[in-house]
Amino acid sequence: MTSSLKLPADWSDLDAKAIDTARLLAADAVQKVGNGHPGTAMSLAPAAYLLFQQYLKSNPASPTWAGRDRFVLSAGHSSLTLYIQLFLAGYGLELEDLKALRTWGSRTPGHPEYGHTDGVETTTGPLGQGVGNAVGMAMAARRERGLFDPDTPTGESIFDHHIYAIASDGDLEEGVSNEASSLAATQRLGNLTLIYDQNAISIEDDVDIAFTEDVAGRYEALGWHVQTVDWTNNGTGYTEDVVALQAALDEARSVTDKPSFIALKTVIGWPAPTLRGTGKAHGAALGEEEVAATKEVLGFDPSKTFEVDPAVLEHTRSQAGERGAKLEADWQLAFEQWRTANPDRAALFDRISKRELPEGWDAELPSWDADEKGIATRKASSAVLQSFKNLPEIWGGSADLAESNNTTIEGEPSFLPSDRQTKMWSGGPFGRTLHFGVREHAMGSILNGICLHGGTRPYGGTFLIFSDYMRPPVRLAALMNLPTTYVWTHDSIGLGEDGPTHQPIEQLAALRAIPGLDVIRPADANETAVAWRTLLAQNNRPSGLALTRQNLPVFPRGTEGFAEASEAAKGGYTLIDAEGGEPDVILIATGSEVQLAVKARTQLAAEGIQARVVSMPCMEWFDAQDDAYRESVLPNSVRARVSVEAGVAEGWYRLVGDFGKTVSLDHYGASADQATLFEKFGFTPERVTAAAKESL
Amino acid sequence: MTSSLKLPADWSDLDAKAIDTARLLAADAVQKVGNGHPGTAMSLAPAAYLLFQQYLKSNPASPTWAGRDRFVLSAGHSSLTLYIQLFLAGYGLELEDLKALRTWGSRTPGHPEYGHTDGVETTTGPLGQGVGNAVGMAMAARRERGLFDPDTPTGESIFDHHIYAIASDGDLEEGVSNEASSLAATQRLGNLTLIYDQNAISIEDDVDIAFTEDVAGRYEALGWHVQTVDWTNNGTGYTEDVVALQAALDEARSVTDKPSFIALKTVIGWPAPTLRGTGKAHGAALGEEEVAATKEVLGFDPSKTFEVDPAVLEHTRSQAGERGAKLEADWQLAFEQWRTANPDRAALFDRISKRELPEGWDAELPSWDADEKGIATRKASSAVLQSFKNLPEIWGGSADLAESNNTTIEGEPSFLPSDRQTKMWSGGPFGRTLHFGVREHAMGSILNGICLHGGTRPYGGTFLIFSDYMRPPVRLAALMNLPTTYVWTHDSIGLGEDGPTHQPIEQLAALRAIPGLDVIRPADANETAVAWRTLLAQNNRPSGLALTRQNLPVFPRGTEGFAEASEAAKGGYTLIDAEGGEPDVILIATGSEVQLAVKARTQLAAEGIQARVVSMPCMEWFDAQDDAYRESVLPNSVRARVSVEAGVAEGWYRLVGDFGKTVSLDHYGASADQATLFEKFGFTPERVTAAAKESL
Repeated sequence: MTSSLKLPADWSDLDAKAIDTARLLAADAVQKVGNGHPGTAMSLAPAAYLLFQQYLKSNPASPTWAGRDRFVLSAGHSSLTLYIQLFLAGYGLELEDLKALRTWGSRTPGHPEYGHTDGVETTTGPLGQGVGNAVGMAMAARRERGLFDPDTPTGESIFDHHIYAIASDGDLEEGVSNEASSLAATQRLGNLTLIYDQNAISIEDDVDIAFTEDVAGRYEALGWHVQTVDWTNNGTGYTEDVVALQAALDEARSVTDKPSFIALKTVIGWPAPTLRGTGKAHGAALGEEEVAATKEVLGFDPSKTFEVDPAVLEHTRSQAGERGAKLEADWQLAFEQWRTANPDRAALFDRISKRELPEGWDAELPSWDADEKGIATRKASSAVLQSFKNLPEIWGGSADLAESNNTTIEGEPSFLPSDRQTKMWSGGPFGRTLHFGVREHAMGSILNGICLHGGTRPYGGTFLIFSDYMRPPVRLAALMNLPTTYVWTHDSIGLGEDGPTHQPIEQLAALRAIPGLDVIRPADANETAVAWRTLLAQNNRPSGLALTRQNLPVFPRGTEGFAEASEAAKGGYTLIDAEGGEPDVILIATGSEVQLAVKARTQLAAEGIQARVVSMPCMEWFDAQDDAYRESVLPNSVRARVSVEAGVAEGWYRLVGDFGKTVSLDHYGASADQATLFEKFGFTPERVTAAAKESL
Repeated sequence: MTSSLKLPADWSDLDAKAIDTARLLAADAVQKVGNGHPGTAMSLAPAAYLLFQQYLKSNPASPTWAGRDRFVLSAGHSSLTLYIQLFLAGYGLELEDLKALRTWGSRTPGHPEYGHTDGVETTTGPLGQGVGNAVGMAMAARRERGLFDPDTPTGESIFDHHIYAIASDGDLEEGVSNEASSLAATQRLGNLTLIYDQNAISIEDDVDIAFTEDVAGRYEALGWHVQTVDWTNNGTGYTEDVVALQAALDEARSVTDKPSFIALKTVIGWPAPTLRGTGKAHGAALGEEEVAATKEVLGFDPSKTFEVDPAVLEHTRSQAGERGAKLEADWQLAFEQWRTANPDRAALFDRISKRELPEGWDAELPSWDADEKGIATRKASSAVLQSFKNLPEIWGGSADLAESNNTTIEGEPSFLPSDRQTKMWSGGPFGRTLHFGVREHAMGSILNGICLHGGTRPYGGTFLIFSDYMRPPVRLAALMNLPTTYVWTHDSIGLGEDGPTHQPIEQLAALRAIPGLDVIRPADANETAVAWRTLLAQNNRPSGLALTRQNLPVFPRGTEGFAEASEAAKGGYTLIDAEGGEPDVILIATGSEVQLAVKARTQLAAEGIQARVVSMPCMEWFDAQDDAYRESVLPNSVRARVSVEAGVAEGWYRLVGDFGKTVSLDHYGASADQATLFEKFGFTPERVTAAAKESL
């Protein structure tokens, strides 16, 4: 055991040896594969051991038990910190898994992957995201508590539990973590504790070159409860004071009106004799000599690798297993009592936990009559949201654009501590309308955290252009198969006067490039309703709605040759066919440009050219249809095709083919009213007509 | 004049009237077009007037004079704050321009656009970006000072000037501003002053719902010099105390070892009688009644619009004009003295100011002999950078991945205050190697600020996957025609063990979608050198290099049928042709996949199929070639084509056409060594060969 360890009085030598075993497993695992991040896993072993053996309300035998505390390793590169505790506590990982670190097919990939390894609550690695996820989990915990058990006093409900996260220097340099942390304080998330592993080392070594701020001071200014546990004794020595950390965690848990921040000052790679405290210990194998020397420091046999004393493993697994089993059993008892006392809420809990929508859930979905003047799809989306009033699992808001994104369900309370209510927004801690502030990036990672925590269905709105600010969490939602929904309004130059900084040009193509994300751009109000219905019926994919600021005509569904809007669920469909059903040319359009295709069809008909108009609100849904359906919409025999979308052409060549034309916008927009912009940039029926003739 | 104005004793009634005129022009301009942001422009009028009439070292007649202070309106939605001062000071905007606000072809677009309106130093609107730009400008000012005049004491050089920025609540909610501000303090940017318009209102009204932190406290914790100027008198009344603001600006300028933060507490929309202090004053026209009522408050004729007393305009233009002319004339005198005393530095100044590279600048560019084992393109890029040692305008660094991105020019000092040097990094305030910390987003906006400030050529590195974190400033670089360079390494599943969170799949397609950005993925070391040479020869476009972590073979250039690497400057070229020059099939590949196409060509030849291999390092450069050249590389007659790139297929259909095949990766990666990943995901010569046969 390292001389530096200071453990609680009731811990045994086996606990101390388990901690040192964890350090050496980290060093060995990285050494074996030849790459990875040993240093943090070594120095954080005492903290991680405390959490997984004594602190977290969790049960290794039941890693998805609803009553558990959540643990987020935002510093995902230190995946071994987590894997080794999962191994020691008995979550299903074995020594062979640790030996297979970072190799094909292993349960121990380079970064923790949600859904891949039991006990991993979120996929981390891109820095800062885990902090946002943890904030989202803490918000979800409060909302779920409000749905299922609003009346029990704080701390006494079976739905009260805590979110713990570990963040590195890098996590706290990333802006997304500051965004999320600021909001966490506004929200008074007393159920959240963030441990900051302040080792002052990143890949470029000493952080003095780039990160000299007073991080704890920043968190105080943000409004967190802040403590510092300094294992470095202000640089004079090193004491891994687990007792002090435990006390800080206790204190953090006792503060219920603020999230808690614990700055834990550590020496990375401790106790590696020459590489501790250096950037070299961060992201590379230590080298055989250093690993052996570390083993000698710890009293382990330097000639052995992956050495685990069976007595240690027996101790850690029985300790964590027995503790966890009792925690869950007690909880289950209370849970059953709650179920009996609250049958309606229990039914809601069961339904939401499975992400099942109730029978007839979409009965109130609005529909619109044909209307040439029409309605903006953002407004149609708002009407759809109002129809979900009685589906409390659907909740969300905007990154300070509620009135523009039309994301508010009228009459529903804001999700806000009572003392944060304003003239415009009333609400309470269990409210429904989210206010993210001007923080698109944190919004994305918070939505992920909400989905990871439980079965609710969160949505978040901003302008489509600012999807660029939130791409990292959108990608992670897709990677994790989370059903987040993005309400991206102001989806083209049609937003008008705000100009090129606000007009999305390349965003649709760039978003469609993300595997596993559905990008949906409805052509009218009724397609918007179908879009919401279709995306909510999915459980395992994120969806982004691209909605207009400006009014769009509502097509006369089921008459005058127009197809029913329900066809939009197939992603692409014949909105209005060529006279006679044998098109000379196919016009494929999305969103606000579908109306141009419809008008061009009439113009072409006047010249004796028969055009089919295909509305393609979602390429991903269309691609998922069978060959026969796709062939029926886009018959291979019709090579004359035109795509119409006010964005870059990239992504359309696949559908229009060698003889097709794209009516697209491959440069930036300008500041003017929308009618002028469409005209000036060539989004007119005439240009579509001309392109169709060129294609023939 | 509003009773609340407290002006310096030597200001006249005309100054007071000018300020009120500015407020009403803002209200009128938004009212006329029917949309826009009047409120902040009204309440910030006194502060903006102080800056443009009395404070900034600037000359309306000479808006790009090198010695000027820079002004950044990070709160770009309040473009009128800037436009109206440019009008009053005489930068060329006239009343007609203000009347044309937010209309087609005007010089007053919705958000300020760099290169479009004289006096606009950067394009802003996407919140937070201006803060990063300002930090970049302040860094550039110091670097340029070090290049041209390193020995003059601080404050006495003609290259000493100041950067001022105005930020809104929304700017400071965005994570990018925190990233940039943290780095600004580490860098001790004493030449930077940020005025925070703390009006506590954003689009969703009172920021209490989302932004309750102690912002000034946060900036203190970041390490800034912080002052508060409270015009609201702690809520007890309203005094627009310009004297106090001026004193705070003086104090800020006197602090040279820290950037300065001035929290200016204002009431948005002041003095509009009913809408001031509300979200309604932020982003919509006030309405005719409210505008008229405001005019009455200010003693203006409510029946008139765009009223500017000729005496006011005469006063403001002569005051700003005379002051500016004198400032510049004095500077020019000193500048000429400096030129005479420093002829070499003056020559360097002239060259860099024009972004001209010296004759023979690329003479030391490395080249590599054929080598099957090869070298990673990130390492080749490093060798190229070393050859730029004597081109001091080329400078840059990494977002904490220097050793991975290979972005360091050996032996060059870090750009660091002396007291921030570490064991690993020595340097000084005029150094060359940048350390951004784990802050990709701020890195992007800082690179923009550096380019906006002067003629240096900055680069910044991170992993390609984290281009997602920095998309907003990359887009803005393209929109502003700034020649930033991004060194994006670890460009595919070839990075191996870090797994799907780190493996770019869709990033190449998503970046290629950005209009005006060149995305360059070299196939070997020699293409990497040509890529750098080509991108540096461009002055008006950002470029992103996608470079490998893993070794790539160096092709035998000029022998065995392989083309010279210099052909890569055309974006796409025949690397090795079909035997006889009449290909049956064309294999188009980029980066690490070109070697697969070369091997497939041999396999196909063994079966009697003649394949041409086209290396396509940069689609944008290829598209810029003339038709004849493109036809010579990809003859229309050859329809059998295969693209090979370890990323999504989107973007390739245009080149491979209806009969082509894409060898692509349309799902996420995995954690394993790179050889296994290429094999498991089908990036093998055999798959390319099979695709070629299918295409025939």
